[in-house]
Amino acid sequence: MGGDFAPSEAIKGIEEYLAETANAAHVVLIGDEEKISPLLTEHSLSPQSYTVIHAPQVIDMHEHPTKALKEKRQSSIAIGFGALASEKIDAFISAGNTGAMLVGALYSLKTIEGVLRPTISTIIPKENDGTGLLLDVGLNSDCKPEQLNQFAIMGSVYAQNILGVENPRVGLINIGEEEGKGNLLAQAAYPLLKENKHINFVGNVEGRDVFIDRADVIVCDGFTGNIILKLAESLFEITQRKNIQHEYLDRFNFENYGGTPVLGVDKPVIIGHGISKSKAFKNMILLAQKMIEKDIMQKLQAELES
Amino acid sequence: MGGDFAPSEAIKGIEEYLAETANAAHVVLIGDEEKISPLLTEHSLSPQSYTVIHAPQVIDMHEHPTKALKEKRQSSIAIGFGALASEKIDAFISAGNTGAMLVGALYSLKTIEGVLRPTISTIIPKENDGTGLLLDVGLNSDCKPEQLNQFAIMGSVYAQNILGVENPRVGLINIGEEEGKGNLLAQAAYPLLKENKHINFVGNVEGRDVFIDRADVIVCDGFTGNIILKLAESLFEITQRKNIQHEYLDRFNFENYGGTPVLGVDKPVIIGHGISKSKAFKNMILLAQKMIEKDIMQKLQAELES
Repeated sequence: MGGDFAPSEAIKGIEEYLAETANAAHVVLIGDEEKISPLLTEHSLSPQSYTVIHAPQVIDMHEHPTKALKEKRQSSIAIGFGALASEKIDAFISAGNTGAMLVGALYSLKTIEGVLRPTISTIIPKENDGTGLLLDVGLNSDCKPEQLNQFAIMGSVYAQNILGVENPRVGLINIGEEEGKGNLLAQAAYPLLKENKHINFVGNVEGRDVFIDRADVIVCDGFTGNIILKLAESLFEITQRKNIQHEYLDRFNFENYGGTPVLGVDKPVIIGHGISKSKAFKNMILLAQKMIEKDIMQKLQAELES
Repeated sequence: MGGDFAPSEAIKGIEEYLAETANAAHVVLIGDEEKISPLLTEHSLSPQSYTVIHAPQVIDMHEHPTKALKEKRQSSIAIGFGALASEKIDAFISAGNTGAMLVGALYSLKTIEGVLRPTISTIIPKENDGTGLLLDVGLNSDCKPEQLNQFAIMGSVYAQNILGVENPRVGLINIGEEEGKGNLLAQAAYPLLKENKHINFVGNVEGRDVFIDRADVIVCDGFTGNIILKLAESLFEITQRKNIQHEYLDRFNFENYGGTPVLGVDKPVIIGHGISKSKAFKNMILLAQKMIEKDIMQKLQAELES
């Protein structure tokens, strides 16, 4: 029920997912049955491929996340996290209220043992057609150096297993190249990253390096990361509005990537953009499936505790 | 002597400045006389329009700023700051070692009374053809809320007098719209900005708002600002390399803006990009002249002490 085009684009995305995926998962739709049922008929989804869990309430985009989750126990987000926590579903995806999705992930699920704080990331389209990962992008606006060090581990596991990058290079967002540069956080995080044997640390990465091929995983506090993410999104939108066309710019279209997983909680949670359309929903389901098939949670735990 | 194309592009810039400016200032060239003299003849600059101060040494781009300034007392940057401090010149411009220019400005000059820390800014090309100002962009990587509040005042004086923006709107870089959002710095800066009677505060500005017309002056810590600046510069370079052409993208070309002044010191210091060409040098001289004609230092002091 989440997002600007709910529920029709979600159902179109499921249709595309089922049609295109050989080993498709069983899809559980959580939402208002009255609104969903006619769409299911319209798109002729095979009844064996899905289950519907009725959720009569919706958390709107502008509601206060914690308050809404507490009061709307029959919302699709609240019921979804209940189903995930009780293992009725294996992964939970929504393009609904981002704050409510984050609060739900943090308070309904356990964090993976050893994780200081879960994190959210974004895909970075690089100049040379490669794909990088930037994290944190807003869940942790003030960070300790140890958190950046964990983001590096979680980002590396994700880049290797989901993005297919062998031995991903980790960079630290900073305002200079040499060790010792930067704000207090970057100065303190650098030696931790340098000593970290679980990652392939390549040093500082400046603003000018983010979109070129200097690193595969770039770590920063969530304040800096969120500014970078939203800046990049808005530049894509500006080029669209000004009708500046190029395949490189198209790669800034978030819909190609689907959504962002919450890394560090013990079950796959994927948060989509409010304006997600069918392609984004399809890609989010594929991402959840890949995270389960690759056993990401287990791999994260192994790297974090060893 | 600073920059990748020194000294020829500097002298070409002076030639253009003198040719195009009715009330041109007297230009003092500080550098290696042997290298400068033949270029002055070549460009047939009128001898009444300039003076040369011989500086036999050069601080290279990769030298350690403090060390180089201390050891190379006969460098163009060291001699330039000496001339500025002793009022032999009224403004100092260089495209040389940025760190040495900053160290020179901070230690050779006085700060304006009441200024906690000087700051550097960048011009922001907005989607609607307007021009905004972002500060700090790297001089102060960790900031106190009171510093952001002063950046807002200094940026407003600059925007009004130099950029010609009446009653400039001030925004605070943040990761949410409402008061109370953000990291600890943004949370603490917001109420100071709201109460500040010297500025026209319009609230938080997210990453997606930077390049649209939400604010004329945007304040942030120098870590965040530097990442934004270098990211924007690199995206311009990427579009150039990929031959993506559009007049909006051309406005991301730093050369249109010349250089950045160090705001908060008691005399005009303008720092150019290392790859400055003649147009950038011309624009930096014009900027210095405007800062003097508009009496920016006096206006900054008046706003900061009242």
